[in-house]
Amino acid sequence: MKTKRILLKSRPKGMPDESNFQLEEQELKGPENGELLLKALYISVDPYMRGRMSDAKSYVPPYELYKPITGGVVAEVLESRNDKYTTGDVVMGNLPWETYNISNGKGLTKVDPDVAPLSYHLGLLGMPGLTAYCGLLYIGDPKPGETVVVSGAAGAVGTVVGQIAKLKGCRVVGIAGSDDKIDFLTKELGFDEGINYKATDNIKEALEHACPDGVDVYFDNVGGPISDAVYSLLNKFARIAICGQIAYYNATSPPTGLRVEPILLKKSCLMKGFIVSDYADKFGDAAKDLVSWLREGKLQYEETITDGFENLPEAFLGLFKGENTGKQLVKVAEPSKK
Amino acid sequence: MKTKRILLKSRPKGMPDESNFQLEEQELKGPENGELLLKALYISVDPYMRGRMSDAKSYVPPYELYKPITGGVVAEVLESRNDKYTTGDVVMGNLPWETYNISNGKGLTKVDPDVAPLSYHLGLLGMPGLTAYCGLLYIGDPKPGETVVVSGAAGAVGTVVGQIAKLKGCRVVGIAGSDDKIDFLTKELGFDEGINYKATDNIKEALEHACPDGVDVYFDNVGGPISDAVYSLLNKFARIAICGQIAYYNATSPPTGLRVEPILLKKSCLMKGFIVSDYADKFGDAAKDLVSWLREGKLQYEETITDGFENLPEAFLGLFKGENTGKQLVKVAEPSKK
Repeated sequence: MKTKRILLKSRPKGMPDESNFQLEEQELKGPENGELLLKALYISVDPYMRGRMSDAKSYVPPYELYKPITGGVVAEVLESRNDKYTTGDVVMGNLPWETYNISNGKGLTKVDPDVAPLSYHLGLLGMPGLTAYCGLLYIGDPKPGETVVVSGAAGAVGTVVGQIAKLKGCRVVGIAGSDDKIDFLTKELGFDEGINYKATDNIKEALEHACPDGVDVYFDNVGGPISDAVYSLLNKFARIAICGQIAYYNATSPPTGLRVEPILLKKSCLMKGFIVSDYADKFGDAAKDLVSWLREGKLQYEETITDGFENLPEAFLGLFKGENTGKQLVKVAEPSKK
Repeated sequence: MKTKRILLKSRPKGMPDESNFQLEEQELKGPENGELLLKALYISVDPYMRGRMSDAKSYVPPYELYKPITGGVVAEVLESRNDKYTTGDVVMGNLPWETYNISNGKGLTKVDPDVAPLSYHLGLLGMPGLTAYCGLLYIGDPKPGETVVVSGAAGAVGTVVGQIAKLKGCRVVGIAGSDDKIDFLTKELGFDEGINYKATDNIKEALEHACPDGVDVYFDNVGGPISDAVYSLLNKFARIAICGQIAYYNATSPPTGLRVEPILLKKSCLMKGFIVSDYADKFGDAAKDLVSWLREGKLQYEETITDGFENLPEAFLGLFKGENTGKQLVKVAEPSKK
């Protein structure tokens, strides 16, 4: 049996392009005892993958050259020689960019096809949704009436953070990079205020206006000068969840700038970095809540689905052009049963 | 009745001196209904007071010019017109530098003279001890076998932090500014390692040697380059208690330097600023533990006591010359009963 796969051919300098990827075919053997044969249905493309394409150290290790890119995949079990799975199961996990794949089952979770569309398990009910839920609720711990600021607000994580904060009774302010995105946040998702940082001369002043009672929770996807502006408005006992620091992902030496420590001291603030896997023991609760909110119409979820395995690099590159709305995915195949 | 008092006469630039203080006498009236007449027994002098003498904003408001300095005082109730106190009670609180004082009783706590020497309530059982206990245990949360690093280790707070961390079964590394202090920490207080940062060319290398398993808890009294060196050794899920940032107390603009946020993200670390009053609801438990450890000989406590109210400025200024060992206090008067 043959599988198509997409390798990292070279490490990008600055913006990646098609030349960094290589499509090839390979003969697949197995499954052997304990293994599964998987067919990819949906594959996720996410901004954090850009970091893994460089060999700079980050919170996840870099991709290896000439090996398949890996990431979130929803797949169907075509054949099982593993007691925990049977043919026809749908699973989700961190898997290689391959149309077919042999797995030992480790790190996979079963997906209930009746809960939500299968693709949602790569977004709202997958890594971005769980990241938003766990970072906001377990670090940010927002209380009704508090002000929550989200940077990178129009992304797959930020859109969920803001909506959950609204469900918790907070005033929610989103920071993003275009007027269309701000319109989407405030008019479609119910954010109270949005700031287009690219169209604002003085982001601190814009934030002061949007946060008349200061900032109690800051969910940070970006770092840099946007964060510095938020820091100046932190209230006593504010909580800061550090989810991403995209401002520094391409830095070649340790980044310098405003020291946050004296601010944390003065205001008794908590700051915590995290990666979603830190909260693996909470995923059950988180998924239950996210599904309920989705079914009750309390959470909106947007996705852009590109068709065809070969289009993975193009879909990934599109993330950096800001053409997609909400979560960007690639559909590889239909499930066998339906 | 007359009281002596010491006012802030002028704000120091750089190192304070005697000319910043003014001693005067004043007529005292009262106590009226609900008030107490207090006689100061011991008055605390602490490094943080330097910050309050400037008008730069910090985590505590600046002292007012031509008003008495305030700080930790142990005092005896000479006369009470307040139901909660009777003549002969000993109390502790944040009080003005005055030999006699009228108080409405707010913010005072009663001191049990049988628990420990009265002066201990300004150190081990007072603000510095409670700061060490609450910051280390409620933020640092040290586990047996973990490595705890303390900066400003030979001070009234740092000495207690290190000893409690040892009681919790940790490897303890103290950073201080003289070989005598390092000897005191390692030979008298049981610290595993000490680093004299003034005698070390490469503090990062010295720390790597002292912390072969990395750093799990960092109790920070200083900030600046010492902290940067510690950050490079943080383990996954490390906790950092920001207690003081003396490196920046005299800064005239927001301090810049290494960004800690990407490090917190990469290692899923928690950083929390605090002031001891944040943990007021824990003081009961904390004092109970500190007293038990003291009685069982598990905690050592050193103090330097200067005699005479008039010598308060001199004792305070001595803190910055590093002449005292352990907690520096001034004894103002003997208790009436004994």
